Amino acid sequence: MALQFEAFCAGGLAPGWSLTVQGHADAGEDKFEINFLTDAGDIAFHVKPRFSSATVVGNAFQGGRWGQEEVSSVFPLTLGEPFEVEVSADTEHFHIYAQEQKVLQFPHRHRPLATITRVRVLSDHQLAQVELAKRGLSWGDGGY
Amino acid sequence: MALQFEAFCAGGLAPGWSLTVQGHADAGEDKFEINFLTDAGDIAFHVKPRFSSATVVGNAFQGGRWGQEEVSSVFPLTLGEPFEVEVSADTEHFHIYAQEQKVLQFPHRHRPLATITRVRVLSDHQLAQVELAKRGLSWGDGGY
Repeated sequence: MALQFEAFCAGGLAPGWSLTVQGHADAGEDKFEINFLTDAGDIAFHVKPRFSSATVVGNAFQGGRWGQEEVSSVFPLTLGEPFEVEVSADTEHFHIYAQEQKVLQFPHRHRPLATITRVRVLSDHQLAQVELAKRGLSWGDGGY
Repeated sequence: MALQFEAFCAGGLAPGWSLTVQGHADAGEDKFEINFLTDAGDIAFHVKPRFSSATVVGNAFQGGRWGQEEVSSVFPLTLGEPFEVEVSADTEHFHIYAQEQKVLQFPHRHRPLATITRVRVLSDHQLAQVELAKRGLSWGDGGY
């Protein structure tokens, strides 16, 4: 899997940010994942659709080891077809949507949130679409 | 000036991408700039509002030296007040808007565009808002 997209924000990527990517997975390999990293290099949140078991898995890598997996069987993705995944964060959770359907809600395991400053998207395919946004309430009239 | 935001995309950040940030500049220092970098580390496009001369300046740093500056006197920014800058790219130009007003159009000096893979935003202030998007035509019904 290659690094397809990475972003760093000094002020932190949680809460208030959302990342939406259009990915593609084929031939049963689970080769798409998103990782939110801390300044220290831990993985505050790792999310991965597992086509092999039709599940979406969330976890964290802290202190040199993976924690308890959180597994969702809400799996609106189809192998070989493009899919849209959105990850957003509020003060308590990461929220994961696939094809605009809520698939997982992951309570924050890493604090303070402001030190979650990097996100990486890995995949075997280039990303057709990416949108990363930190939006305040006063952002333009359209509130986009 | 500190690195406030950085993004990398393996497939390149031009054409078809747009970056919109809400920045802040005070006390006459021109401490806000956006740089689009190539895989080799050249600056394919550097843009900076110069409050001191009420101009927006664009340039490129290639082969170890700065090129000819392109200077615009369309300057809808006010010192000490938050401002919104958008940079987008098509196959021929970078397009720069400030406060939603077109301020500069910068013909590409670096080719191929696909090797422009990194963007950095430097400022003394954290960015209140950031939106980085690569949008294809088929992206959702709202075309956002």
